[in-house]
Amino acid sequence: MKIAYLGPIGSFTHNVALSAFPQADLVPFETITEVLKAYQDKQVSFAIVPVENSIEGSVHETIDYLFDQENLKAVAEIIQPIKQQLMSVTTQYPEKIYSHPQAIAQGKQYISQHYPKAQFEVTASTAYAARLVAEHPDKPYAAIAPQAAAKQYGLTVIAKDIQEIEENFTRFWILGTQEQLVILPKISKKISLALTLPDNLPGALYKALSVFAWRGIDLTKIESRPLKTILGEYFFIIDVDNESKELIKYALSELTSLGIEFKILGDYSVYTMSTP
Amino acid sequence: MKIAYLGPIGSFTHNVALSAFPQADLVPFETITEVLKAYQDKQVSFAIVPVENSIEGSVHETIDYLFDQENLKAVAEIIQPIKQQLMSVTTQYPEKIYSHPQAIAQGKQYISQHYPKAQFEVTASTAYAARLVAEHPDKPYAAIAPQAAAKQYGLTVIAKDIQEIEENFTRFWILGTQEQLVILPKISKKISLALTLPDNLPGALYKALSVFAWRGIDLTKIESRPLKTILGEYFFIIDVDNESKELIKYALSELTSLGIEFKILGDYSVYTMSTP
Repeated sequence: MKIAYLGPIGSFTHNVALSAFPQADLVPFETITEVLKAYQDKQVSFAIVPVENSIEGSVHETIDYLFDQENLKAVAEIIQPIKQQLMSVTTQYPEKIYSHPQAIAQGKQYISQHYPKAQFEVTASTAYAARLVAEHPDKPYAAIAPQAAAKQYGLTVIAKDIQEIEENFTRFWILGTQEQLVILPKISKKISLALTLPDNLPGALYKALSVFAWRGIDLTKIESRPLKTILGEYFFIIDVDNESKELIKYALSELTSLGIEFKILGDYSVYTMSTP
Repeated sequence: MKIAYLGPIGSFTHNVALSAFPQADLVPFETITEVLKAYQDKQVSFAIVPVENSIEGSVHETIDYLFDQENLKAVAEIIQPIKQQLMSVTTQYPEKIYSHPQAIAQGKQYISQHYPKAQFEVTASTAYAARLVAEHPDKPYAAIAPQAAAKQYGLTVIAKDIQEIEENFTRFWILGTQEQLVILPKISKKISLALTLPDNLPGALYKALSVFAWRGIDLTKIESRPLKTILGEYFFIIDVDNESKELIKYALSELTSLGIEFKILGDYSVYTMSTP
């Protein structure tokens, strides 16, 4: 069985893939869009992509692609704690530190205290940063990347857990056609919906939320995303607790009666991973 | 009078600054955070930063900084249409095309049709990309950047308006202590609020929205942003039509009665600019 994931080897998504599919043939892709396309083209049975980080918020490349395309649905969610390591080939003072912008933002405070002269350079992902540093062993380079990337590219961790905020988690979605059981602790069941509100329904968002509120169905997230037509037109992502399938069924029919279009982006169990 | 803006010269924000403050001393800064800090430190009288794009969504660096800090408030909003140009020193086939990730996303379709062999390189802003290309006149480089950047750095536009989606606008906020009148067409008045919902109030978001809905006050935007504590805790940005100051006053007192904390991020008129 083939599984597409956001690579390269050593990335946070790779770590999720190893936990969820320890026996499968894991295939890395360079961008989220390429992972999702590989799944749509049936090159793989499942795809794994990040969907939200507790500090940075939603991963728009994932959310927008799922909203725009048909037949893509999350069948499991895995929550992974994110820890960032400073790694290098040598122990000399790093002149350039490579990483993804989100990891740079998280490590900036540590670096400015300990390596004030180092310059930041942006890469497409943390794992690419680690690979780039490994490919230039003669240069005074370092990377901010996960532990797994240090192992993969033979780098030495020169400072451990440098992220500024302790509580840093990322949600990853497994896309597939059938529920995927994962051997990890299961914490809840959720449904994620994308709502498109009709122009001619005043207070439409309020009415959409009423459908869930009066039934006592909890929303765990709401976010507007631009419809990419004109400024001020949005679709809404809502995550809904899915403990009562019956109540959800009625709520969804009522949305339809109100003229509110929705798309189910995922219907899944939520699992947690321990620190990589 | 000094005005801080997101530079360098030739950026979209610079263009807004020139329209809003044609007589002032405009001071560029490299990042949004530096612009906002310069204003907080009273180095300048006003600050101008982007807050939302119609395709990419909110500018989190702006929203999160305003939420975290005291005494920062938008006093005017300017909406600018965004058009991207491909520019270079020479007319030879560009081997590398530099730009900000959002502009690259917007120009990718045009470039892959017309320059399939060109490689993309990421820069911190579109105007930096233009400057970098101008600094290497002997290299086969091009940049995706605004018209003003071509003029500023003496580059030739080799393809005009290459953005994929026609309707592309960015909202910019002017931060200050008093209302800033701008000589541009005025289209509406709005208030932007950041809400923090109490844990012990079931359906708190729904109740917060009720306060506006039953008074017939329109919301033009709602977005959740992570509180950066644990995954699944959010604050909410809402933009509210501010045509009736009296109704808004009652709505805000009712939020307080419900135990819902709010912060006013801006209280402003909205102006539109024509294409740069």
